[in-house]
Amino acid sequence: MPGLDRAAGRPLHVQVADALRAQIRDHRLPPGSALASEVALQERFGVARSVVRQALSTLVAEGLVERSRGRGSVVAPARQHHRLVQRASGLYAQMAAEGLAVGTEVLSLTEEPAAGQDRWLGGDRVLRLERLRRVDGRPLARIRTALPLPRCAGLTAEELTDASLHEVLTRRFGARPTGGRRQVRAVAADTDLARELETRPGAPLLLLEGQTQDQDGRPLEVFATWHRAEDIAFDVDLETGPSSSDPPPLPPPPDRDGLRAAAEQAQQLADRLRELADRAG
Amino acid sequence: MPGLDRAAGRPLHVQVADALRAQIRDHRLPPGSALASEVALQERFGVARSVVRQALSTLVAEGLVERSRGRGSVVAPARQHHRLVQRASGLYAQMAAEGLAVGTEVLSLTEEPAAGQDRWLGGDRVLRLERLRRVDGRPLARIRTALPLPRCAGLTAEELTDASLHEVLTRRFGARPTGGRRQVRAVAADTDLARELETRPGAPLLLLEGQTQDQDGRPLEVFATWHRAEDIAFDVDLETGPSSSDPPPLPPPPDRDGLRAAAEQAQQLADRLRELADRAG
Repeated sequence: MPGLDRAAGRPLHVQVADALRAQIRDHRLPPGSALASEVALQERFGVARSVVRQALSTLVAEGLVERSRGRGSVVAPARQHHRLVQRASGLYAQMAAEGLAVGTEVLSLTEEPAAGQDRWLGGDRVLRLERLRRVDGRPLARIRTALPLPRCAGLTAEELTDASLHEVLTRRFGARPTGGRRQVRAVAADTDLARELETRPGAPLLLLEGQTQDQDGRPLEVFATWHRAEDIAFDVDLETGPSSSDPPPLPPPPDRDGLRAAAEQAQQLADRLRELADRAG
Repeated sequence: MPGLDRAAGRPLHVQVADALRAQIRDHRLPPGSALASEVALQERFGVARSVVRQALSTLVAEGLVERSRGRGSVVAPARQHHRLVQRASGLYAQMAAEGLAVGTEVLSLTEEPAAGQDRWLGGDRVLRLERLRRVDGRPLARIRTALPLPRCAGLTAEELTDASLHEVLTRRFGARPTGGRRQVRAVAADTDLARELETRPGAPLLLLEGQTQDQDGRPLEVFATWHRAEDIAFDVDLETGPSSSDPPPLPPPPDRDGLRAAAEQAQQLADRLRELADRAG
């Protein structure tokens, strides 16, 4: 923990809040973890108790920290959308299934020469689709898609507005997104992406790139989707296949630790469902 | 594309290079794609041809752009490590399998109270392991791990140095990482993470968090790994689930009552599992 900049014009309590906020945002202080006590923070930053209190009040007001009886200050649960990146289904279907108001603006739909990854589609030219997706009115994702030109003749911006591309491709062209590959990166927003996603240049974005095939294994789309990082987490289930050549041993009867862990998982599920119920209300 | 800042002290060719670099870094200009022609860039930025040429030379010198006969300037392939996030196997095994020189420094190994996600391990205290992983001498990942204290007795920092944690857990304790869940986020580096990963505060990091079970389904580790974003991409294979002839209809958005009922069922399950755990003890 580096010291504060006492020569700077910014008040000490703002600097303390900034340092703690950065650690909460990047999960060094993960949701549910306890912040150090006021005394410990006072010593760590070398500031008065009142400075620590003012910084904590700021974080409480921002919803990043909750005061909990008996446990002091605790990092609040992250309110993020979750996306299952192993599913071929797109963001639209996943968000809509959660009951969220998903809006899709078509920024442009044009014929273009195939570039880079687009060539996987197999043609010299592609249909380029540029979209902005909002959830509950707030920009969540900027999507660039290349589609195989001959297979998507007559696609219009109108039918893609506030719609699922995958649903339209299935209904109009009988092409159902089925398999493919995805890649995930963290990138810094350039000025255009920052403006479109209503964030600052340099802000972290979670980038999902992919190639999707249809039910017959034919290339269907190449896409890149930039998500506002603060608003989303990608979930991945581990493959549970045999991890070595040994046959998997039969599981022993569950012991106390295993049952306790299962109980904890069920408890987390119950908490999550209650949270969703509250949001649906 | 916003205009340049002509009042700023920074030379125009530096500003043009910055703008193009930001677009290459965040994949708006993906690897393999052609940059606009010199004439087009000249018009877009409103600068002299010599300014564009100087900016492009900078990007070529940085290895971000390649000059290609007949195609003009092309974005160079990204030189990134790839990690398969669906596999239980860790970063060490995956990098070592690629023949890379992987080094692991143990920053600390201490007993601590369980906090946040650690409670999934089922105990009040955990063994906290803090590590820094280098590939070919360059920091790639900062790893924080919580291990179940009773099962990992006698683990030392020495045996974890330049080693795979999973390999040590399997050999020493017969606990083979087998299943679990992973979550992926993009975050901005706080000052501590920036220093450890030799990047700047605010730089994007790719965060992988997870819970891993052993071959018997027992909780084995809870971890968070922050990766330098520029150096890594996560690969994900899509599930190729059963493909029916018709697209599955979207489920109706869950309503509040339905979610409350599900929460109640999950709560009953949690209570029942706790009762079984108490009886098994």
